[in-house]
Amino acid sequence: MAKTNIHTISAFAAALGLIVAAGLGVAPGEAAAQIAKNVAAKSPWGPTDEIGTLNMMTDDSRFDVLKQISGGKVYDLGVDLFVGMPICCGAFGDPTFQIFMTHAPSRGDPAKELLSYSGDGVTMYTHTGTHIDALNHFGLHGKIWNEVSASDDLGVRGWTKSGVDKYPPIVARGILIDVAKSKNLVHLPSSYAITVADLKDALRKQGSTLRPGDVVLVRTGLMTLWPDQAKYRLLDEAGLSLEAAQWLVEGQKAMLLGGDNLGVESLPSPNPDNFVPVHSYLLVERGVSLMEAMWLEDLSKDQVYEFLFIASPLKFRGGTASPIRPLAISIQRK
Amino acid sequence: MAKTNIHTISAFAAALGLIVAAGLGVAPGEAAAQIAKNVAAKSPWGPTDEIGTLNMMTDDSRFDVLKQISGGKVYDLGVDLFVGMPICCGAFGDPTFQIFMTHAPSRGDPAKELLSYSGDGVTMYTHTGTHIDALNHFGLHGKIWNEVSASDDLGVRGWTKSGVDKYPPIVARGILIDVAKSKNLVHLPSSYAITVADLKDALRKQGSTLRPGDVVLVRTGLMTLWPDQAKYRLLDEAGLSLEAAQWLVEGQKAMLLGGDNLGVESLPSPNPDNFVPVHSYLLVERGVSLMEAMWLEDLSKDQVYEFLFIASPLKFRGGTASPIRPLAISIQRK
Amino acid sequence: MAKTNIHTISAFAAALGLIVAAGLGVAPGEAAAQIAKNVAAKSPWGPTDEIGTLNMMTDDSRFDVLKQISGGKVYDLGVDLFVGMPICCGAFGDPTFQIFMTHAPSRGDPAKELLSYSGDGVTMYTHTGTHIDALNHFGLHGKIWNEVSASDDLGVRGWTKSGVDKYPPIVARGILIDVAKSKNLVHLPSSYAITVADLKDALRKQGSTLRPGDVVLVRTGLMTLWPDQAKYRLLDEAGLSLEAAQWLVEGQKAMLLGGDNLGVESLPSPNPDNFVPVHSYLLVERGVSLMEAMWLEDLSKDQVYEFLFIASPLKFRGGTASPIRPLAISIQRK
Amino acid sequence: MAKTNIHTISAFAAALGLIVAAGLGVAPGEAAAQIAKNVAAKSPWGPTDEIGTLNMMTDDSRFDVLKQISGGKVYDLGVDLFVGMPICCGAFGDPTFQIFMTHAPSRGDPAKELLSYSGDGVTMYTHTGTHIDALNHFGLHGKIWNEVSASDDLGVRGWTKSGVDKYPPIVARGILIDVAKSKNLVHLPSSYAITVADLKDALRKQGSTLRPGDVVLVRTGLMTLWPDQAKYRLLDEAGLSLEAAQWLVEGQKAMLLGGDNLGVESLPSPNPDNFVPVHSYLLVERGVSLMEAMWLEDLSKDQVYEFLFIASPLKFRGGTASPIRPLAISIQRK
Repeated sequence: MAKTNIHTISAFAAALGLIVAAGLGVAPGEAAAQIAKNVAAKSPWGPTDEIGTLNMMTDDSRFDVLKQISGGKVYDLGVDLFVGMPICCGAFGDPTFQIFMTHAPSRGDPAKELLSYSGDGVTMYTHTGTHIDALNHFGLHGKIWNEVSASDDLGVRGWTKSGVDKYPPIVARGILIDVAKSKNLVHLPSSYAITVADLKDALRKQGSTLRPGDVVLVRTGLMTLWPDQAKYRLLDEAGLSLEAAQWLVEGQKAMLLGGDNLGVESLPSPNPDNFVPVHSYLLVERGVSLMEAMWLEDLSKDQVYEFLFIASPLKFRGGTASPIRPLAISIQRK
Repeated sequence: MAKTNIHTISAFAAALGLIVAAGLGVAPGEAAAQIAKNVAAKSPWGPTDEIGTLNMMTDDSRFDVLKQISGGKVYDLGVDLFVGMPICCGAFGDPTFQIFMTHAPSRGDPAKELLSYSGDGVTMYTHTGTHIDALNHFGLHGKIWNEVSASDDLGVRGWTKSGVDKYPPIVARGILIDVAKSKNLVHLPSSYAITVADLKDALRKQGSTLRPGDVVLVRTGLMTLWPDQAKYRLLDEAGLSLEAAQWLVEGQKAMLLGGDNLGVESLPSPNPDNFVPVHSYLLVERGVSLMEAMWLEDLSKDQVYEFLFIASPLKFRGGTASPIRPLAISIQRK
Repeated sequence: MAKTNIHTISAFAAALGLIVAAGLGVAPGEAAAQIAKNVAAKSPWGPTDEIGTLNMMTDDSRFDVLKQISGGKVYDLGVDLFVGMPICCGAFGDPTFQIFMTHAPSRGDPAKELLSYSGDGVTMYTHTGTHIDALNHFGLHGKIWNEVSASDDLGVRGWTKSGVDKYPPIVARGILIDVAKSKNLVHLPSSYAITVADLKDALRKQGSTLRPGDVVLVRTGLMTLWPDQAKYRLLDEAGLSLEAAQWLVEGQKAMLLGGDNLGVESLPSPNPDNFVPVHSYLLVERGVSLMEAMWLEDLSKDQVYEFLFIASPLKFRGGTASPIRPLAISIQRK
Repeated sequence: MAKTNIHTISAFAAALGLIVAAGLGVAPGEAAAQIAKNVAAKSPWGPTDEIGTLNMMTDDSRFDVLKQISGGKVYDLGVDLFVGMPICCGAFGDPTFQIFMTHAPSRGDPAKELLSYSGDGVTMYTHTGTHIDALNHFGLHGKIWNEVSASDDLGVRGWTKSGVDKYPPIVARGILIDVAKSKNLVHLPSSYAITVADLKDALRKQGSTLRPGDVVLVRTGLMTLWPDQAKYRLLDEAGLSLEAAQWLVEGQKAMLLGGDNLGVESLPSPNPDNFVPVHSYLLVERGVSLMEAMWLEDLSKDQVYEFLFIASPLKFRGGTASPIRPLAISIQRK
C-alpha cells in the first residue's frame, strides 16, 4: 500500500513516461525556473479566497458579455461519458467510468407489468470526460492555493478548502485559440509544446483579441483522435508550454484555461522533479483553474472564436474536479 | 435476488408507503383515469425522437430569451453533493453518494514533497442532488417514450434510446411558480397535492404568464428542510397532482418541469397500481422530462419569477438521469 | 467536508446514540479505567508484528485441532451479501452493499445468441456482512497496534501496516459461548452488557473449557433479528462488556473473538470519550482481532460448542477488514 | 450503449484477440464439435439443482479427506487484491479494483484525538484476484446450467439461480497437476493448449492418482509473471484444451477445476463463434465451476500434490463469481 508522496508519484510518473528521464530530458531551463517558484501562493483576493482568478467575474463582467450575444445556436463543448471511454489516469489507479443499472424493466414479458422502472448508478474519477480541475487538485510542499495546508484542511473525504463545491457558475467571455488550424494541422504532433509565438500567430490569423477575465480555450486538434484510448492519451500529448501558460495568465490576465487534450499541458514534462509543471504553476501559484478534454471541433469548424462561455460544475463537496458540459454561444466580435 | 417487475416494485413501494394501501386510499378517480392512458406514446416529432418536448427549443426560441437578459446576476439552482446528503432512493437499494480520495498529499511531513497530488472518485445514483430525469427513467408495459421497447433497446449498461446523453443543453425561458409563497407557507404540508387553482393563483399573484416552451419550476418550500434526511424525503412529499401536471403540459405547453422536492409529484400516490403516476404520465405519455431537488430559495427571496434558464446535463451514455447545476438569469418581464 | 478527528467522530457517535450522553451515562468506572490504558501497545511479538495474537497459531496448534475432527458436517458461519442488507455504518457515511451487472444475456430473443455472458461488480464497505476487523481499524492518539503511527504508515489507499492482507488464514480451535441459550432467551435485551459471570455460567452449562489460542464466538441471539435493518442494528446492541473482553483475552488467552452482533461489544458505550471502548482495547491495546455479524444459529441449534474454526480473509491490501465466510467442523470434546 | 448480445460480444472478443480471426484460425475440429453440444444441460441432480458437480460433496466425502490430514502447514492459494493489480476484464469494461478510505485518523496532530478510526470501501469486478466462477457466469442461447432461462430468472441485480450465494463451502480432496514442472518450464508458452497427454504425463511423474470428486488444480506457471499487467493477461494465455477439460470432468469425474492463469483455458479460442469454449462447456454443459488466478507456487515448490482443499466463497446474492482465498493442507498420499 504505497504512501502517496513525492517519491512514489515521481517514480510512478517516470515509469509511465510522464516525465523525461533525468539526464536525457531537456533541462527545465532558466526561463522555466523564473516562472515557477514552486511554492503555494497567497491569494490577492484575501485569506479566505478559495477560487483564485474566478474572482474576476462580477455581475458587470457577466452582463457585459451577455449583452453581446449574437444568436441562439448553442455549442456543446462536452463529450459523452461511457464505459470504455479514454480516461487520463487509469494507470495511476483511478477508477474507470462505470454506469450500472439498479432498476430495469423485467425480462420475459414486460408487457405484463404496468410501470417499467429504470435507474442507474455511476462510479468515476472526478476528472472524467470534459471536466474542470479545482485549485485543490495540486499543491506544492503540502500546501494548495492560498497557503492552505493538508494538516489543517484535508480530511479523509477531501479538502475543506478550494473544492469544486466552492466554485461559482462560470459565465464569461470565451476565446478559442485554434493552434492546430493556425498551423494547418489536423492535430499537433506528439509532445508538441505550444509557444507564446504560436498563440500570437493563431490569434492574429483569427483576428481575435484577448481581454482580462477571458476563458481561453486552446485547440490542439487532439479531439480528432477521440475516443481511441490508444491515441487520445496523456502520455505524450501536445499542449501548453510553461511560458505560454505564463503569457496567458500573467501577460493577458486570462481567468480560466481549457484545452481539448487530457492535461492542457505538453507531456512528458521537461522537469524531472515535477510531472505536471503547468498544472502546479497555474493551480498552486496563480490560482487559475483548468478545463480538460473539451470538445472544440464544432467551434473550430464554424470559426467561432469569441463567445459567451458557460460552465456549471457539480458541487462535489471537497472535490478536486467535476465533469462539466460547457456551452458556447457566439457574441458580436468587437 | 428480486426480479424487478411490477409485483416487486409495487410491493416495494407499498412497503415504503409510497402508495396508499389499496382499500384505504383515495380512488384515482375518473379525472385521473382520463388523463393517464397508461401506454407509452408515439412521439409527434417522429419515430427517431428521443427527447420529447425538448424539441420545442430552436435557435430562435433561445435567441428570443437570450435577448431579454436584464442583468448579470446568476442564480445557482443546484445543491451540494456530499456524503450523508438526502437521496430519494436508498430504500430502493440505490447507492448513497460517495466521494473518496485516490491521491492525497503524504502524511507526516508533506513539506518534503515537491508536488502534492489530490484526486478523488465518486459513486452515486444518477438521480442524486439536483438532477434531470431522462425519458427512459420510466416506461409503461415495458415501453418507454416513443414506443421503444426494452427487448429492442435495453442493454446491460442501459437503454440505447432516450438516455440523458441524447439531451441537448437546455436554454429557455424559465418561470418560477412559488406556490408556498402564494399560500404564505414556509412549505406545503405533507403529501399536499398542488391543484390547477393553486398554480393559477400563484401566477396571478406573481403577475407571471406562462408561454409555450417554458421551463416551469414549482416551489413547495421543501428545500427549507434540506439537508435533513429525516425531513427532506420522498415518502410523503408535497408536489404536483396529476391534474396540475396535465394543465401545465397540455394546457400551457410547458416544455420541462422542475421542483424543489425529491419527486416533483405529491406522494404517496393515490393510485395503488402506480407509485409515481405523474412521472409515468409526463415521461412516458407526454415526453416531458423532470428536474428534481432544485434550489429555488434564492429566486423566491428575490422574487425573480421569469428568467433565462440554463441546464447542461452530463451525457452519461444511456443514463436515466444526470445531476445538474442549473442557472437562472433574470430577464425583462413582458 | 468534515475532517475525521476525535471531535467529529465523537459528535457523530453521540448524535447516533452510540455513546451515552455525558452526565446521564454510566461512568466508565475504576474497573474500566484500569483495563484500558488508552495508548497503543507495543507487540510482544516484536517490532515487525502486524497481526497480534494471531501469532499464537503454529503448525502444531493447527495440526492439534485438525487431528480432532469428528465428522464431515460443515457449519457455515457467514451471511448472504445482498442489496438492502443491514450494515453497521451507513449513518457514518459508508457505502451500502451494491451488486451490479456488467454483462448480461441480451433481452428480446436470447436464443439467437450462442454465448450468454453474465458478469457483475460489487461496491461495499469492507465491514459488510460477516467480517473480520484488522488491527488497523482503530488506533489511539494516531497510533495503531504496535505503536505504528499514521504519519509513517498511512497512505491515501490505506495503512501499510496491519492491513487484512497481512492476515494468515485462521485455522484453530473454536468455542461457541451461547449466552442467549444459557439465559433461556431468544436474544439478549437491548444494550445488555455481557459479564464475566455470564460467560462462566454459559461455559459451565455447556461443559466447555477455554484454552489459550482459542477462537471464541459469543452468541447474543441477535441473528434471530437478521436481516431486519430496523432491528439488527449497531445502536443499542447487546454485546461484551469491557470486563468480559478482558477476561477472555487476558485471563483465558483467547486468540480471536467473534460475535453474532454488528459490533461485538455492548452499545451505546458507557464512555463518553470513546464510542467503541472494547474495540480499541482489543485491537489497539491487546492485538486481538474481531469478527462480527457471524451466523451462529446452526451451531447453537446443534449444540456444537467446540470445533475446528476456519476463516480465510481476502487480502485487500491495507484493508481494515474483509468479509469472510467462516466454517466450523465439530471436533471430539476433550 | 451496446446491447450485450452475441454480435457485440463476438466482435468485442475478436477485437481483443480473444478468438482467432475467422478464416485464419484453427478449425474447432470434429473432436471439439463432439465434446460441446452448445446447449444448456439439464442437471442430473434434479430440476432444483443450482450448483452442479458440487453436489458430489457429502459429509462422508469431506470426513474421508479430513481424516487424512498429515500436518498443520496451511498453503495460501489466494493473491493480494490491490490498486493496479492485473484483472481479466478491464477491456470488457469491468471495473478495476478500488479500495478507498471512508474514515482515517486526522492529519495535523492525531495525538490530540483519543480514538483514531480507519475504514474503507472496495469496488471490484467479482472476478478479481483468485476467484470462483459460478454456474450463472455463462449460458448458451440465453439459458444457464439446468436450462434456467434469462427471461424467468434474471433480474437487474443478477440471476435468482445458480448465483455464488448458493454455493456450499468447498471441502474436498485436491490435486495439483503441475504441467509446467512436468515439462521443465518456468511457464507454458503463450496460448499453449494443454492436452490429455500432458495431464497424464504430469500425474505419472508426480505419482498422483485422480479420484471422482477431486478438486483439480492445473499449474501453467503463469503466476511467475504476476503481478505484471502486461504479461499476466487473458489474451494469449496457456491453459486447458477442450479435450483436456473433457477428460478431467467426464473421464476422471473431477468436481471442480482451477488454474493459476486468468481464464483456466487456452486463449485465444480456436472457435470463432465462442471466445471461451471451455468455460461454456464446463459451466453450462457439465455443471462444473472454475477457479482462476490461483497461487500454486508454494504447493509446486514443496511438491505437495494431494491435499485437503478448502474454499469458502462469499455469498454475493446472484453473483457470477466471488473472490476466494483457498487453502490447502497436505494429506497422506495413498
